[in-house]
Amino acid sequence: MVHGGGPTPVLNASLCATVLQARRYPAITAFYGARHGVAGILNKDLVSLSAQSDATLEAVSSTPGSAIGTSRYKMSDLDLDRILETFRGAGIRYFFCAGGNGSMDTALRIDSAARHAGYDLRVIGIPKTIDNDLAETDHSPGYPSAARFFAHAIRDIGADNRALPAPITVVEVIGRNAGWVAAATSLARHRPDDAPHLIYFPEQVLTRAKLLADVEAIYRRLGRAVVVVCEGQRDETGSFFGGAELNTDADARDKLPGNLAHVVARTIWSGLAVRARGEKPGLLGRSFALTVSTVDREEAARCGAAAVEAAVQGHSGMMCAIRRMQESPYRSEILLTPLDKVARIERLFPSEWIHESGHDVQPAFLEYATPLVGRIDPHAALEEIPV
Amino acid sequence: MVHGGGPTPVLNASLCATVLQARRYPAITAFYGARHGVAGILNKDLVSLSAQSDATLEAVSSTPGSAIGTSRYKMSDLDLDRILETFRGAGIRYFFCAGGNGSMDTALRIDSAARHAGYDLRVIGIPKTIDNDLAETDHSPGYPSAARFFAHAIRDIGADNRALPAPITVVEVIGRNAGWVAAATSLARHRPDDAPHLIYFPEQVLTRAKLLADVEAIYRRLGRAVVVVCEGQRDETGSFFGGAELNTDADARDKLPGNLAHVVARTIWSGLAVRARGEKPGLLGRSFALTVSTVDREEAARCGAAAVEAAVQGHSGMMCAIRRMQESPYRSEILLTPLDKVARIERLFPSEWIHESGHDVQPAFLEYATPLVGRIDPHAALEEIPV
Repeated sequence: MVHGGGPTPVLNASLCATVLQARRYPAITAFYGARHGVAGILNKDLVSLSAQSDATLEAVSSTPGSAIGTSRYKMSDLDLDRILETFRGAGIRYFFCAGGNGSMDTALRIDSAARHAGYDLRVIGIPKTIDNDLAETDHSPGYPSAARFFAHAIRDIGADNRALPAPITVVEVIGRNAGWVAAATSLARHRPDDAPHLIYFPEQVLTRAKLLADVEAIYRRLGRAVVVVCEGQRDETGSFFGGAELNTDADARDKLPGNLAHVVARTIWSGLAVRARGEKPGLLGRSFALTVSTVDREEAARCGAAAVEAAVQGHSGMMCAIRRMQESPYRSEILLTPLDKVARIERLFPSEWIHESGHDVQPAFLEYATPLVGRIDPHAALEEIPV
Repeated sequence: MVHGGGPTPVLNASLCATVLQARRYPAITAFYGARHGVAGILNKDLVSLSAQSDATLEAVSSTPGSAIGTSRYKMSDLDLDRILETFRGAGIRYFFCAGGNGSMDTALRIDSAARHAGYDLRVIGIPKTIDNDLAETDHSPGYPSAARFFAHAIRDIGADNRALPAPITVVEVIGRNAGWVAAATSLARHRPDDAPHLIYFPEQVLTRAKLLADVEAIYRRLGRAVVVVCEGQRDETGSFFGGAELNTDADARDKLPGNLAHVVARTIWSGLAVRARGEKPGLLGRSFALTVSTVDREEAARCGAAAVEAAVQGHSGMMCAIRRMQESPYRSEILLTPLDKVARIERLFPSEWIHESGHDVQPAFLEYATPLVGRIDPHAALEEIPV
């Protein structure tokens, strides 16, 4: 098993379910995890997963992060040969890779190389991305929980904003190119004046003029506003909004701004002379354990188990995908989709689910997201009783 | 009832308990909340609290924010006269004020003005501050819950950092001058290499050289680090660390940096050439409903009820304070302390609870905080089994 890309609150649920399912097949005599991605295979830095007790696996399955470690390492063709050599040497016949569209490309390359070399390897991808930008699946494990965190965050920051108007609070959510997580903050609304008041999508450019006009309109009506913006939001110059400064935690091509919410807040202040502050919950969105979605945890585990079944049945070059079978009560099934239909393909937030205002979702999105994210309870309010 | 300063997740617990307790006294015929602080009294913008049903009050008591609204308005002497006039006109005999040391000063001034004017008014303060910087009380309602949020946040960001080392993650926590909340993130640790690895206190200057030396030492040992820093951290120049840019959400004298975590992360990157990113959960620390401490909610309610009892018994010019009676099981009592012993007095984090390294707490702090914040469950880990 290899993990690629950022962890999620349910990645370990997939991991542990995979190991527990493999345990049912005596022919699978050992199960290893590569520490920190494919580098763990290259360096023979492995974790024995089959030797873990059921109790340990069950306990680890509800923790955030990645119990074997993950990475953003880009695999070279030379690495590919060495990986196959290692597999051959150790008699490894199944390869499971949990990740997003980049990791599915890694899996696809390993699958192709094995076929080309005539080595019987079964490669199955397990979907994982809080960004929800994987193709061919209704949604990706990790997304519902990240969405649930940010919906709770906006609900509660909304209560704070109502109590002591900042008056403008800008909240930066995870999302480089896709607005799925930003969209989910709409689930925090119960009353007409509830936060979020403005949701922007990285699929659309946000001009300074639009931001200021939108904020001014809400501020005039409510005297306050909560604004949701993605870390990867770009403005009319094509650069990150307002020339936000880059983080230093990634390779050049993966860099994202480190202070976008702050830059948006200062833009509002300088443009409207209205007080504003920016918040950046950041990595909490992909790690907070208390806001895991029940559906998400369960589906993440089912994807792991389905990956083992697929490999045992002789499939390879496939990714487990989720198909929505029924809305109410929500029910899904796990099916297989070829890796080449998901590798390196980014599924953006559908434009038909963006409200024509450009700063909200359409009701169809709420229908899509609600069963995944679960209910976000409204906060009770005092009755309006004239004095 | 008036609320002053930033809301907390348990301010409404105090509010509702006060109203429910007042209901026991038929002589108290009406109970009003001033909307958004003393301005609500001045503008006769009031909420009828006594007319709310028990069920509404009980539901509201578990919401974050302030159901009547709060403010940072600075009361003038002229306001003081008008407030007394209003009280006289409406027959208001009890005045409850929930807030921090600034709000206790407001309460003290109203108490003194009433005495001076010969008007029989009973003024009781209800402690509230996530900063925990009120004097004369073991701790302040709001602090245990904010501490619990940030301890969970650091535990889970620690799991993320372990899974995919940033490698340095800087987390900015609430706290202008006092390191109480930062200190509480130490409760997230269970294993020796758990986050947080460095905790800085605004009571001490943080030089660039110390930051870099500390981070380098952790990074050499673990290959990663989670650093906790307060929003009000200053460096050797006396300014906010690294010249961090100010928020625009407050009056000039209350301004705090808006991007301190980001500045610290960039300082690490430029000084050590190690990748770093900054997070700023910000207002979530004082609003997140899922991390309310049970002890906190219960004590917040008891402070509200005790305020009514004190007023009925004829006390005035006093604040309810919490005295720790027993450690295990934890038990506290509510007593009264004169407002002039708490008004405008800031209780900093005790220097004897700062580790001599300047970047950690002493064990005595853990003994103090654990019963308040409650247990932060450790994350399970895989067993170390040689492959």
